[in-house]
Amino acid sequence: MAKQDKDAPKRPTARLPKGMRDIGPAELRQTQAMLDKIRVVYERYGFEPLETPAFEYTDALGKFLPDSDRPNEGVFSFQDEDEQWLSLRYDLTAPLARYVAENFQDMPKPFRRYATGSVFRNEKPGPGRFRQFTQFDADTVGAESVAADAEMCMLAADTLEALGIPRGQYVIKVNNRKILDGLRDAVGLADAENNTRWLTVMRALDKFDRLGREGVAQLLGRGRKDESGDFTAGANLDEAAIARLLQMLTLRQHADMQQGLNGLRFNPVINTGKDVDELVPRKLTSTISSAISYYVENTQHRDIRELAALETGLREIEEIGNMFEAAGFDDGRIVFDPSVVRGLEYYTGPVFEAELLIPATDEKGNPVRFGSVGGGGRYDDLVARFTGQKVPATGFSIGVSRLQAALNLIGRAPAPTLGPVVVTVMDKDQIASYQKFVQTLREAGIRAELYLGNPKKFGRQLEYADKRSAPVAVIQGSTERDAGQVILKDLIEGAQAAAAIKDNKEWKETRAAQVTVPEVELVSAVREILARHS
Amino acid sequence: MAKQDKDAPKRPTARLPKGMRDIGPAELRQTQAMLDKIRVVYERYGFEPLETPAFEYTDALGKFLPDSDRPNEGVFSFQDEDEQWLSLRYDLTAPLARYVAENFQDMPKPFRRYATGSVFRNEKPGPGRFRQFTQFDADTVGAESVAADAEMCMLAADTLEALGIPRGQYVIKVNNRKILDGLRDAVGLADAENNTRWLTVMRALDKFDRLGREGVAQLLGRGRKDESGDFTAGANLDEAAIARLLQMLTLRQHADMQQGLNGLRFNPVINTGKDVDELVPRKLTSTISSAISYYVENTQHRDIRELAALETGLREIEEIGNMFEAAGFDDGRIVFDPSVVRGLEYYTGPVFEAELLIPATDEKGNPVRFGSVGGGGRYDDLVARFTGQKVPATGFSIGVSRLQAALNLIGRAPAPTLGPVVVTVMDKDQIASYQKFVQTLREAGIRAELYLGNPKKFGRQLEYADKRSAPVAVIQGSTERDAGQVILKDLIEGAQAAAAIKDNKEWKETRAAQVTVPEVELVSAVREILARHS
Repeated sequence: MAKQDKDAPKRPTARLPKGMRDIGPAELRQTQAMLDKIRVVYERYGFEPLETPAFEYTDALGKFLPDSDRPNEGVFSFQDEDEQWLSLRYDLTAPLARYVAENFQDMPKPFRRYATGSVFRNEKPGPGRFRQFTQFDADTVGAESVAADAEMCMLAADTLEALGIPRGQYVIKVNNRKILDGLRDAVGLADAENNTRWLTVMRALDKFDRLGREGVAQLLGRGRKDESGDFTAGANLDEAAIARLLQMLTLRQHADMQQGLNGLRFNPVINTGKDVDELVPRKLTSTISSAISYYVENTQHRDIRELAALETGLREIEEIGNMFEAAGFDDGRIVFDPSVVRGLEYYTGPVFEAELLIPATDEKGNPVRFGSVGGGGRYDDLVARFTGQKVPATGFSIGVSRLQAALNLIGRAPAPTLGPVVVTVMDKDQIASYQKFVQTLREAGIRAELYLGNPKKFGRQLEYADKRSAPVAVIQGSTERDAGQVILKDLIEGAQAAAAIKDNKEWKETRAAQVTVPEVELVSAVREILARHS
Repeated sequence: MAKQDKDAPKRPTARLPKGMRDIGPAELRQTQAMLDKIRVVYERYGFEPLETPAFEYTDALGKFLPDSDRPNEGVFSFQDEDEQWLSLRYDLTAPLARYVAENFQDMPKPFRRYATGSVFRNEKPGPGRFRQFTQFDADTVGAESVAADAEMCMLAADTLEALGIPRGQYVIKVNNRKILDGLRDAVGLADAENNTRWLTVMRALDKFDRLGREGVAQLLGRGRKDESGDFTAGANLDEAAIARLLQMLTLRQHADMQQGLNGLRFNPVINTGKDVDELVPRKLTSTISSAISYYVENTQHRDIRELAALETGLREIEEIGNMFEAAGFDDGRIVFDPSVVRGLEYYTGPVFEAELLIPATDEKGNPVRFGSVGGGGRYDDLVARFTGQKVPATGFSIGVSRLQAALNLIGRAPAPTLGPVVVTVMDKDQIASYQKFVQTLREAGIRAELYLGNPKKFGRQLEYADKRSAPVAVIQGSTERDAGQVILKDLIEGAQAAAAIKDNKEWKETRAAQVTVPEVELVSAVREILARHS
């Protein structure tokens, strides 16, 4: 170990916490614009904003912790002065349940609220996977009707379109946990003592899109070793149970089932090995009873409980499909996909997932799967944790950070905004009069600033203006001041001209992109240049 | 202790963490509007947005902790999986210093950034004093010039005006910590070992507005017992030192000093016992030298170090005043106030504080002092903590939550927005067609929703619409459906009519504020009603 100098002050290292990040102007402005657009849609659907604190008592957040690749609980926790445990919220739903339980008597019922903000996960960070990210949720509490679930899917579709994703380039996938409940019976895991094992099963099913039939089969059986050599323990089901589960997931491969349910189509995208363009969804017309009879026939399983749950699940899906038909959402924007699980333990009915279908490739030219950019579902038991009273609820959550990352990956990032007009300082003792130019521009609503660094080297000031993407530099030396004039340098045109005549001596002489105007015309002349570049 | 029922499930109590709060729609919409307005001004001044994480490594946040009434450190802290300590940010400045130290090479210098977000204080909560609140900061890093400080004051003034606070109803107070440094010498606390004691002194001076001369004298001496009987330990200065400090604070009571410095006036408001209306500030013309000679004469103290610091401090204030004059801010919006300290240890030069002057009374009719709604100053040492290299910096922070609370106290709260149009459910089997009405309205950009509760009791649906502040209820029974019509109930006019004829039987017969229109005219008829109430 190197010997430390006792007298040297011990300085902390400036470093970001693990899994966290700083976000700069271009991305933040884009986020702001996205949040504003999402808000407009959520408001139009009649939801009202609510903000809860960034942390809650740990017991109030409850046992409903998110999926975690690490053995710890997935949340950041600390104790207050009364030794009570507090945790940073890991989603916006658990705090909503606390709010509803606390304020149930006074709120309008059904209660519709939207919320946005940072959530925190104490999970293993990875590329593009941070420990703090932004969600934007809408939830309806106190509505038993599946019309509330249908509305969430329509909200999801309208929101993605408001964000500039055209119809056909996204899909909202719907399933029903009650269908899965039927399967749980079918594979003999219905008892409460098998809760954890069933959770493992659902997590495995949820990975169908990513891992395919073989990978899921491994996770349902003994387990799976991934490319990096990491081993994930499986659910230890026997061959027959695995086959039964996979059969439901691949229902859509049967031609009759391709006919689907009213107003809903089967998700045609996944696992077909075809390009997105070929997969124009067809309108589906078959009925619940044909779906069930197909299932019964093909699984050779006639357990009554299983069929009851399955039938309820499919009937609800049918009702949801009817809503889509009535509202004109039956054009393939929203599809029935029996492989959708949603990993969280707390869903009790319909579940939804929003996925981008925009074809994209990574830097190596391999096709990129964006995966889910939002999702949700019905969770009828979350408020009952506090009150004992069952309160039906359903919600949808946009993963704003994730969606934004996806949009940027496919080149949908907005053009960077122009920087401010920079008023340079030629003569240090005239700084107050330069400040006056700045003020004049600001009063006219033009972004402007005085160069506040050391004005000695004038070149530095222009370098600064460049680095700030300033469109215009305002310059006034004594000659101009005596004549009551200012020089305006069009930095964008100047940069283009400089690029064009790069290795050429004429550059110095041209003084291209520069104009001298009377002081009183400062605002109008700057506006003229700005207009050229907007 | 009561015997617990072993079989009963143990349920958590739904409760907010201590010092935290939920924020509802009216306040949130107002906050949103405020943030948007502040953002426009900050952008116009050339600042760029930056977002840092909600928590940092504790050592990176450093020893610069906020004032705290409690013995603990004032922050919420926890450990990550590597046992490193993390803390929720208590302001937006300490994270900025970490960011600058980490990215210094690559950033434009000077670096101008704005940031907004929640900050967290592990302090004793009280009425209107929460542990999570919103700040909106602008900072310029790398600018030595006091022009950067002057700009912060102008930014503060422009921001308050953009928020609807008229000129004359707020004041930006400026002081310079270098003036206080001179005083520190004068009272013999210049040594590093007296750092803590000097901090106590500054905290005492900072309370001048609230506690007056006598209260501050106690805090400078042995200590002070407040109305509740709580005792705050003092700085234990002797009588002569206390007198010297109070003399500076009350400089403005001397007639000559009322003349002030170029472009800056003394704060005329505090401690005069007069109404705000009487206190039209006068333009001041006296010079630095007269200020110093006055001070020397009146304190009978000629320590050279003290005078050097004092002179530098006053000269900087004069330069700042010149900037205000040039930019047209010399009309009393910004004043020199030697009692402004800003409690934080880290300020090294000019300090500023924004205060509302709007006359207001509490529910008992007593005049209310709002105190500071924002402030800031120069902190040249914050980045040096990491790098050893001194980086000049100055900033201003708006206490958004505090300002909003103040505006609401004086009745500046915005009118509540109208709720959505509520489409009611008369016939449960027609729910899909009701959904179609909702969709039609939404597509026309009108906030609308389907009643999603149990539709059995129709009265409940209208109660719900009332509770949601819905302007219109859409109703269709079988009669209307057969005729291709809908009933629109104007709920605002209806409520007014109901109030007017409260105890009157005619109410039932009137069917006031209700109109039947063809389905195809749904949108235009709703728009007509909405137009009446906007």
